[in-house]
Formats: sequence, C-alpha cells, structure tokens
Amino acid sequence: MASSITAMSDHVYKKIELVGSSPRSIEEAVTNALTRAQKTIRNMRWLEVTETRAHIEDGQLAHWQVTVKVGFTLD
Amino acid sequence: MASSITAMSDHVYKKIELVGSSPRSIEEAVTNALTRAQKTIRNMRWLEVTETRAHIEDGQLAHWQVTVKVGFTLD
Amino acid sequence: MASSITAMSDHVYKKIELVGSSPRSIEEAVTNALTRAQKTIRNMRWLEVTETRAHIEDGQLAHWQVTVKVGFTLD
Amino acid sequence: MASSITAMSDHVYKKIELVGSSPRSIEEAVTNALTRAQKTIRNMRWLEVTETRAHIEDGQLAHWQVTVKVGFTLD
Amino acid sequence: MASSITAMSDHVYKKIELVGSSPRSIEEAVTNALTRAQKTIRNMRWLEVTETRAHIEDGQLAHWQVTVKVGFTLD
Amino acid sequence: MASSITAMSDHVYKKIELVGSSPRSIEEAVTNALTRAQKTIRNMRWLEVTETRAHIEDGQLAHWQVTVKVGFTLD
Amino acid sequence: MASSITAMSDHVYKKIELVGSSPRSIEEAVTNALTRAQKTIRNMRWLEVTETRAHIEDGQLAHWQVTVKVGFTLD
Amino acid sequence: MASSITAMSDHVYKKIELVGSSPRSIEEAVTNALTRAQKTIRNMRWLEVTETRAHIEDGQLAHWQVTVKVGFTLD
Amino acid sequence: MASSITAMSDHVYKKIELVGSSPRSIEEAVTNALTRAQKTIRNMRWLEVTETRAHIEDGQLAHWQVTVKVGFTLD
Amino acid sequence: MASSITAMSDHVYKKIELVGSSPRSIEEAVTNALTRAQKTIRNMRWLEVTETRAHIEDGQLAHWQVTVKVGFTLD
Amino acid sequence: MASSITAMSDHVYKKIELVGSSPRSIEEAVTNALTRAQKTIRNMRWLEVTETRAHIEDGQLAHWQVTVKVGFTLD
Amino acid sequence: MASSITAMSDHVYKKIELVGSSPRSIEEAVTNALTRAQKTIRNMRWLEVTETRAHIEDGQLAHWQVTVKVGFTLD
Repeated sequence: MASSITAMSDHVYKKIELVGSSPRSIEEAVTNALTRAQKTIRNMRWLEVTETRAHIEDGQLAHWQVTVKVGFTLD
Repeated sequence: MASSITAMSDHVYKKIELVGSSPRSIEEAVTNALTRAQKTIRNMRWLEVTETRAHIEDGQLAHWQVTVKVGFTLD
Repeated sequence: MASSITAMSDHVYKKIELVGSSPRSIEEAVTNALTRAQKTIRNMRWLEVTETRAHIEDGQLAHWQVTVKVGFTLD
Repeated sequence: MASSITAMSDHVYKKIELVGSSPRSIEEAVTNALTRAQKTIRNMRWLEVTETRAHIEDGQLAHWQVTVKVGFTLD
Repeated sequence: MASSITAMSDHVYKKIELVGSSPRSIEEAVTNALTRAQKTIRNMRWLEVTETRAHIEDGQLAHWQVTVKVGFTLD
Repeated sequence: MASSITAMSDHVYKKIELVGSSPRSIEEAVTNALTRAQKTIRNMRWLEVTETRAHIEDGQLAHWQVTVKVGFTLD
Repeated sequence: MASSITAMSDHVYKKIELVGSSPRSIEEAVTNALTRAQKTIRNMRWLEVTETRAHIEDGQLAHWQVTVKVGFTLD
Repeated sequence: MASSITAMSDHVYKKIELVGSSPRSIEEAVTNALTRAQKTIRNMRWLEVTETRAHIEDGQLAHWQVTVKVGFTLD
Repeated sequence: MASSITAMSDHVYKKIELVGSSPRSIEEAVTNALTRAQKTIRNMRWLEVTETRAHIEDGQLAHWQVTVKVGFTLD
Repeated sequence: MASSITAMSDHVYKKIELVGSSPRSIEEAVTNALTRAQKTIRNMRWLEVTETRAHIEDGQLAHWQVTVKVGFTLD
Repeated sequence: MASSITAMSDHVYKKIELVGSSPRSIEEAVTNALTRAQKTIRNMRWLEVTETRAHIEDGQLAHWQVTVKVGFTLD
Repeated sequence: MASSITAMSDHVYKKIELVGSSPRSIEEAVTNALTRAQKTIRNMRWLEVTETRAHIEDGQLAHWQVTVKVGFTLD
C-alpha cells in the first residue's frame, strides 16, 4: 500500500468503491472507472479489484463490470 | 447486475455504504436508508445487503439496523 | 442483478458454475465457457467470476482456467 | 441439514442456486423461487440464503432479488 | 456496537449464538429466539444475523431458521 | 439444519463451539468433543466443523484438533 | 485443477454441489455422493469439500454430511 | 452498532473507508484518520478496523497503515 | 493451538466469544475482557481476536471494543 | 497456536503451505505432506488444514489432495 | 488441482505466494511473476490468483500488481 | 502496495507468512518477527496482519502471537 517515502507516514487516504464497464476487457473496465473518477478526485494512489462480473446478451458477453476500491490521499 | 440496454456498457457506477433502521422489519430499515439517500443521490440503481443487526432493549428487539451498499450511476 | 424493466420483478433465475479455459487470456477463458453453455442454456443474463487459476507447463503459463457463475432466466 | 431419521444416513442431496424476485419482501422473493423450482424438482428439503439484493427505480426499491441454495434429495 | 454513554467504556460483553424458527418471517424467527433467551439472560444489547435458512416440506417453505449472535453485558 | 417434523418450527437452538483432540483421526477428535459435551448438554442435534488443525511433535503429527459448532435444542 | 495435457486447454467444466452422508467417516460420505453422481454424470474430474457437518442422535454422532463441489468435463 | 436511545431507531448512517498512518502504533494510525475526518464529517459514531498493514524501510517497520470503516449519522 | 505435551491429546476445549472495552488500547480492551472472564472460567488457554471496533464521541475515539474468542480446557 | 511454556514468548514461527496426496484418507494425505517436509524443515509445531480436494478417475475418487499450512520455529 | 495420472497420487506440492507487475495487463503481471520464479523453482504446476491491485500515477493506471499462489512439485 | 516510482513496475515480490510473539503488545510481536526475518531476507517492503492471537497463563495474557504476511522484492 502506498509509497516508500517517509513523508507519507502521516498521510490519510480515503477509499471509494466504483464499478467500471467495458465490452472489451477487464482492464478497460477498470481504466474507464478511473477516467471518470479523475474528473473529481485528485491524488488517486492505488486500486483493489473486489468483484468481476459481466452482462450477457443473446448468449454473448456484452460488457464486463468490474468493481474496484480506489484509494486517494486526503490533502 | 445493471441493466440490459447496450448504452449502459460505458456507464460508471459508485457504491456507497448506508445503515438504515426500523423498529418493524429488515425491509423497512432498507427503504428508510433509501428514502434518506435519495435526497442527495440521483440515479440509484441497485443495493446489496451486507450486514443485518438489531438493537435490543428490555429483552425486546427495539430496531433493526441493516447495512446496504447502494450503487448509482455517475453522470 | 438483472435488468431495469418492471416486468422482471417476477422472474426466477438459476445460477450454474462453469470453468472455461484459454491459453491466451482470462477474458477468452470466460467467453469459451459461455460459447459452450449457450448450446444448451437460453436466456443467460449475467456472470460472476469466482476463481482465476492457470495451468503451468515447462515453466510457462499453459492455459487460464476461470470459474464463473452464470445466471439465466427460468421461463 | 436434513432430518432426524436414521434412514436418511445414506441419502445424497444436490444443491442448486436460484434467485427469486418480489416487490414486497425478502420472504416472498424466496418463496417465488421455490414455487418455480417445484415445477421440476421433487423432494426439496432446505434452503440457505446466500445473497440479498434489490433493484431500485426512481429512487424507490422496485423489487428484492434474493439468492438461495436449495437442497433436495436425489432418489 | 453498544451504547453511547461513557460509563460503558469498561463493560465486558458476551456473545452467544442462537437459532430461532418461525413459519412466517425472518424477523419472527429472530424474535422467537430472543423471547426464549430472555428467560435466562439479562441485559441483552444487540444481535447480528449470521445465517438465514429455511426448512421445506411438500415443496413449500415450512419454517425459517435464522442464526443470530446475541451480545449481552456481563455484570 | 434440524429435522423435518412440523413441531420443530417453534424450537430455539443454541450453538456452542468446542475443540476435540485425537491422535488418530479427524472423526475421532470430533466424537471425543461430543462425548465430553454430552455430560452436560442434552438434545444435541447437529454439528458443523469450522477448523481442522494438528499438533506436530518430532516431525510427526501428534494429535488432531478439530473445532466444531454444536447445535442443541433449548427446552 | 484438471489435467496436464495440452489438449485440455479448450475444455469447459461444470461444477455441481452435492451432499453425501455416512455413519462412518468423512471420506465415505464423499464417496457415497460420488457413487450416486456417476449414475448420471460422466467425466467427473475433481471435487472440493466445502462444508463438513454431522447429525447427532442420542448424544452420538449419527452420520456425517459432507458438501462437495464436483467438476466434470462438458463434452 | 449505534446507541441505546429509542430516538435513534429512525437514524440513517453512512459508512466511509479511511486509511490512517502512524510510525508508532495501530491505535495512533486510527486516531490520525479520525483527526483528519472530523475536519469535514460531523456526528461520527463508531469505526470498524478492516485491514492492518505496515510499510517497511531498511528492515524496520516504518509506519502502520490501518484501514477503518467509520459510521456517522446523516442529519 | 494449545500445548506441546502429549497428555493434552485427549483434552476438549470450549471457545466463548467476549467483547472487552478500553479507552486506551486494543491490548487493554482484550485484557479487560480476560480479567472479567477469569472470575468464572478456569483454565483459559488462548484467545483469537475476531473483530476490532471503536466508539467515537465528539469526533474523538472514546473507547475500543475488541471481540475475542477465548479457548479454555473442559475438565 | 504454539506451546504453553513461557520461554516461547520470544519465538518467531514461519508458516509454509503444502499439498499432500493419498488414495486412502484425508489424514494420510496430511501425514504424507509432513513426511516430505521433515526432510528439510526442523521444529515443525502445528498445521492448519486450509483446503480439501480430491482427484476423480473413472467415476472413483482416485486420491485426496489436502492443503495445509505448517508452522515451524525459526531458530 | 494437479494432473490426471495415477503416479501423482503420492506427490507433495508446495505453494508460494508471489506478486507480479505489469503496466499492460493482469495476464502479463502474472507471467512476469512466473518468469522470475522459474529461475529458481522447477516443476511449477498451477497458480491461483488471490488479489488484483494496481498502482495509479497522475490519474492513470501505472501498473497492475497481481498476487498469485504458485504450486510446484517437491521432488 | 509497494512504491510510487515507475521503475518498480517490473518488480516481482514474494510474500512469506511469519508469526511473531511478544508479552507486551501487538506491535512488538510484529516487530519481533521483522527483526528475525531481516537476518535472512533483504528488501522487505510491506506487511499485512492476518491473524491476532494470544496465549493465556494463569488467567493472564502471557504473550501475543501475531501472524503477518511480509512482502519483499526478488532481485
């Protein structure tokens, strides 16, 4: 978790839970969630995948839906 | 998980964790949490019950306290 | 969690557990399982990844083996 | 876990996973799943609730979706 | 957990595990367990639902069996 | 989970946690715990194995230590 | 999981959940479940024990009830 | 779980997840997170520790990083 | 678990669940629970921390509440 | 958890994860793992069973595969 | 787990836990861990993904960090 | 997990599991494990507490035994 520099020992992080979607891959579902999150959140530091699901249509995987917890520094 | 329409494949959801209370039932504890949440959150889509507890007074169940994760669409 | 249309409130779903394989990716292992499943199952709606493993041969990852729970509507 | 009569010691059970829905209550979502299941399964003996979710529409809880494992005797 | 008054900071609680039954609802199964417990236990403070099961007879849900952990103050 | 007779729908059970030991087998460790428990507990109905450990001495397995939850009827 | 030969990389497996019983041992409860399952399922490959319980009568362990997930190849 | 006064039965709580740090102790990592949180959150009521980690530098424990869920009353 | 002497191979232990409190530390909350428990329980042998919570008042951590399972020898 | 003698309070243990096999029993699968481990590891003290699986051939249980964590003293 | 040939019934496996990294994909993070591991470990047989995380820099996913348990045969 | 510098994206870590002891505190039990580990392991980077237990003697907490997973860089 978090970084290797001493100054960080007094940081406080908040973790929020997001679900990103993508018709192509698990990775893209996650990065789509990050792209949306960075509109309003600064200083995101790490994420943890907590759930991987997909929606099926007409017998085909239509899109992945991946839940992540994203940790960011509180200023 | 989520809806059946293709347009949703690029949605991003956020999940928040709430605890609702009710002296009557587990269901009402959950809907009380939703009623409060919709004052400030639009586009709630689903919820997951993660914990069911109750407070006891004088040997009687006084009120249920039910924890839910609520997922809503980020615009 | 199913779809957004009201008519679905009286649906019953069944979930079965499958393991798909692929030498290339986690995603392909999952879609290989779906391709096989749709030969006999109609109305698949969603899946949940529950376990990700891989087989190793000669020090190389030979194929992924991904376990999914697949939910489908019972008519 | 099954019954108290000795004869059952050589029974084999199968467990299947179902998701029932109801706009009214968790209990009704479960019994709706059982009603559907008994069309094709005989000798159901017990169930275990494994997940409780709900679908939300217009800020209101639209219907509960409850996952159960149902155990039944294999003849 | 437990109450908001300072005096409680030196309390010790014990948690016991009970299973209550009811043909009608999950809530009633829990309160049936409490009714029985208060014959011998004073100062019950809270409970946590840890497992929800039901017994099935003739294709019908016969009674719910709900496991709770009950916390009470040790004098 | 308890028995198949209707009269049991109003029973309340208590579950306690025991650890039994045996140098020979997992099964004997469990039955040793039961033998001890029946000195003071009537109406034991079922058990659930929650943990299996063993103590090692001189590179040999010396005895199994198996944790069980035992459910019994409260009169 | 599964075998070491390359040809298996395109296999799809299904996992089903069974509960076997035996008055004698955990192992026999499992093999009793397998004996019953092989009447209708071909190509069983592996199993995973997910729950170990027992039924108690007259203060004695009457029979073990062991839940297994059984994986088999879909042709 | 919240307090013992009846009036609280209609409260709704929100739980957020924070990570606090401290070079000295697990307790201080938690209180550092609280100190930061109270700048913007009123009515915090309880917390649950969900993860305890530490960062290591030069073979020494450099600082603890403790994740907590904090529950607070929504007005 | 438990001790290294052969004689213990036929011991049976019981585990009970307690919650201790302290305004100062996690360790003290645990020892407060033990101090209370030893009034009535002999032969306590080990404990396992299963949950760590705290109560917050006026934005400050008021007291820790730590749940432990305590194992003791049944004579 | 380790032994009852005071001198052990400053011991450090390492836990490793092994999988043992046996065509006969769960217990023998575990002892086969121990027999192999003691060729290179001294001072093994306890083990915890973390997973029980079996390999099936021709509809028969061919051999058990049991995963254990083994704890041993670091000198 | 493991292979289908009878000779393997007396094998003992060891499982170690590794974390691999990659800026591109979950799969590559895993294969990077394997590439490193095969420098010193022979006879790796399978792996299980136990945790998927990522590091974020400047609002972008910088690299995946995937934890795997790798099983290999002890000679 | 791990550090913030780009160069680390191709690192591979190994995680080992240790149990440290201390009569005084959870923190000291962990640092005692680290002190022992650094005799043979270089480049330890982080740890995760996975289990907290204690040994009891004469009704007193004799020493804490804390299990940690320690991650270190493979060169």
